[in-house]
Amino acid sequence: MAREGTRIEAVMSEIRSRITSRAALPGARLPSVRAQAGALRVSVSTVVEAYERLVAEGLLTARPGSGFYVAGPVAPLALAEMGPKVDRAVDPLWVSRQSLESDARVLKPGCGWLPASWMYEAGVRRALRSLARADTLELAEYATPQGHPGLRQFLARRLAAAGIDASPEQVLLTESGTQAIDLVCRFLLEPGDTVLVDDPCYFNFHALLKAHRVHVVGVPYTPQGPDLDAFDAALGEHAPRLYITNSGIHNPTGAVLSPLVAHRLLKLADRAGLVIVEDDIFADFEATPAPRLAAFDGLSRVIQIGSFSKTVSASLRCGHIAAKPEWIDGLTDLKIATNFGGGRLGAEVVLSAITDSGYRKHMEAVRVRLAEAMDKAVTRLATLGITPWIVPQAGMFLWCRLPDGVDAAAVARACLQDGVVLAPGNAFSQSASAGDYLRFNVAQSRDTRIFEVLERALSTAGRGSKART
Amino acid sequence: MAREGTRIEAVMSEIRSRITSRAALPGARLPSVRAQAGALRVSVSTVVEAYERLVAEGLLTARPGSGFYVAGPVAPLALAEMGPKVDRAVDPLWVSRQSLESDARVLKPGCGWLPASWMYEAGVRRALRSLARADTLELAEYATPQGHPGLRQFLARRLAAAGIDASPEQVLLTESGTQAIDLVCRFLLEPGDTVLVDDPCYFNFHALLKAHRVHVVGVPYTPQGPDLDAFDAALGEHAPRLYITNSGIHNPTGAVLSPLVAHRLLKLADRAGLVIVEDDIFADFEATPAPRLAAFDGLSRVIQIGSFSKTVSASLRCGHIAAKPEWIDGLTDLKIATNFGGGRLGAEVVLSAITDSGYRKHMEAVRVRLAEAMDKAVTRLATLGITPWIVPQAGMFLWCRLPDGVDAAAVARACLQDGVVLAPGNAFSQSASAGDYLRFNVAQSRDTRIFEVLERALSTAGRGSKART
Repeated sequence: MAREGTRIEAVMSEIRSRITSRAALPGARLPSVRAQAGALRVSVSTVVEAYERLVAEGLLTARPGSGFYVAGPVAPLALAEMGPKVDRAVDPLWVSRQSLESDARVLKPGCGWLPASWMYEAGVRRALRSLARADTLELAEYATPQGHPGLRQFLARRLAAAGIDASPEQVLLTESGTQAIDLVCRFLLEPGDTVLVDDPCYFNFHALLKAHRVHVVGVPYTPQGPDLDAFDAALGEHAPRLYITNSGIHNPTGAVLSPLVAHRLLKLADRAGLVIVEDDIFADFEATPAPRLAAFDGLSRVIQIGSFSKTVSASLRCGHIAAKPEWIDGLTDLKIATNFGGGRLGAEVVLSAITDSGYRKHMEAVRVRLAEAMDKAVTRLATLGITPWIVPQAGMFLWCRLPDGVDAAAVARACLQDGVVLAPGNAFSQSASAGDYLRFNVAQSRDTRIFEVLERALSTAGRGSKART
Repeated sequence: MAREGTRIEAVMSEIRSRITSRAALPGARLPSVRAQAGALRVSVSTVVEAYERLVAEGLLTARPGSGFYVAGPVAPLALAEMGPKVDRAVDPLWVSRQSLESDARVLKPGCGWLPASWMYEAGVRRALRSLARADTLELAEYATPQGHPGLRQFLARRLAAAGIDASPEQVLLTESGTQAIDLVCRFLLEPGDTVLVDDPCYFNFHALLKAHRVHVVGVPYTPQGPDLDAFDAALGEHAPRLYITNSGIHNPTGAVLSPLVAHRLLKLADRAGLVIVEDDIFADFEATPAPRLAAFDGLSRVIQIGSFSKTVSASLRCGHIAAKPEWIDGLTDLKIATNFGGGRLGAEVVLSAITDSGYRKHMEAVRVRLAEAMDKAVTRLATLGITPWIVPQAGMFLWCRLPDGVDAAAVARACLQDGVVLAPGNAFSQSASAGDYLRFNVAQSRDTRIFEVLERALSTAGRGSKART
């Protein structure tokens, strides 16, 4: 009887492992009881009992007269569990969730956006008041498939000012910058393709690319842009289809692509037939514009992405894609299929905010405040032995190295207990080689409590690491 | 020399066909010139010349010292060209684009939404005015990952009123109803899976499912719901993972699921482990609520989708998903990865519009207007020999059969010339068996010019079909 129990367990465990490895897919019919008994060299009654128990567990379903089937779906796409197991504190989705979920009392030096009070609130209020008097179509109707014509015209002019020649027909509006990149990935990638990213890069690129079931290869980032030798080697070894980067103000480092690297990078991309997605959402933070890959390339193999979530408001979602006309056409079909019509209202508010006379002044003031906050953060962090990789010319990010032997994930966990959300380095690093880095958002790092909490966490983490050695 | 030219052509054509069949993927390295010459039994110089010409054509790229590579990307996802070639007039994306792109002068009896002047404009204006005075966070900050807590609470109460027991934590806000279905598909489907749809069904389901690279199987729809024998047979034959439907007011037929069919359908789904997506965006049009699969099932295997684009405004995008808690958690991760934070503003406007005292009255008035428009459309269409499949109890759709021998796609093409956008039946039909049907939106069919244009097109199409027989 004991041996019979063991045999049933063995059959159940065999079937369970086929299901978890997806050798047997949800909905698939299992071998008949007789065939299974033969294959596993057990009795028919053992298989019947094993099948019945798996039905009771919900793993199989029985269809009278037809047989046993794998219950479905058992394996929905679980982003948090895909790929190698990582410390939940450096899981990119953990960082996003902590930043998005926390209430106003939580301090968020690790988040990727400005405090709400730094955004263009006055412009948004004016836009809403004027929209409340707008005509019915603006208030009630879907946008055209490519999105608000006036905003696309404005964006084409802004692209021209940045040296990128694009007609309004080459601009597609989306619901957000992230959705824009997601559409491009759906358009150009197939599961199993390879994509290059910077190491470190914006952590949500990792989560997004997981959702596309592609292979991600990181290229080390230098203060002038990606390491070109490593980039060239990655092209030869992996034949990637896409490279996703920020040229302007690189996330998380705040670095700026040099013209020399930009030029060589595009030559390599040309030879390899590589498409480049240039995520340019920090453009308006630059005092003096850095070179853009899209300007060098003329939107031939570069696709540029933008959004207004970082400067106007994150509460209205509005992003855009600039690309060559034939790609915009296919992307528009894909946008209709997966999101149907876009909204008019968000685009209308954005257009009226950025074209009102106050926006330029607002951004000048933001740049001044950011520069001051940057100085203060560098000075304050230095007292804790935390040193910037570079001091960026613009933007909100400061990529910093912790004192020797201190683990950023441990510090992040400790600080979270005290209501401070940090962004640990390995969330940004495909090779997990940034375990002693943190990304600070200087605009969100003005409260002195952050540094008190950080100091305590550092001393504990430092002791912990010394105790271990 | 002529023979040499022919050989070069043959090599080029061989490589071209490998690329178009995706046997050689973009970025892949081609066999060396010597190996290729051996394999194709031609000279090395023939291969060199063929490779060089393909480089000149842009199909290959040369990397000095490394070899020849397939230029990439050459095959972005082209929804309009996937699957069997269809008449562009019945391509689902064509219908969507015509409806979304057309300006106010075009008449759109084929579109799927109310005229802007029928929407809840007064409520939206009031909401915008009050939002212009809201606090900074509402105006500038991202929403929490699951979306506006107040709107989720409201939706949970509304679900409870429909007999669906769900906590606010079981509701996830999205940017639109379509995006909600798209997220669910990404969560539960893998390329190659099978999905059941009604035949006919909302045409954008076809486009959306193409983007997911899944196999679509249509189940004939009856006035009480899907044909259960066909449904059962499809479960046995195709082991689908998902079934997407509208129970309330079925698009395009306006039919309502009977309790008997709902109950039997869920029993079949249970046995097969099938997940059901119930797209419930027309709920507010019902005078007496029909049974909901989600209410019978208790959100165990049913996922319910909703949106406000059909009743409040299509200009603000705001949809939602109700599902079991563990699915909501995975869906939320996927939403962050592919769209990052949602907006607060759209949700805030929707919540304030639907909870203001005028919304209920507004919807009552819309239902009365729709009933009147339905009567008129039925009468007017009868004079043209166009007969409804059923006369729906509610909603805007009337699914109609044309006179014998008239092709709906031909009629749609002719009417478009005269500024009238129709929705031909085969755009809704997976089996292409609705070639003599049109879907009318009665709210968009009040202009008498529509029937004049239609009458002309019918007589031409009728003559055409007689001439052919």
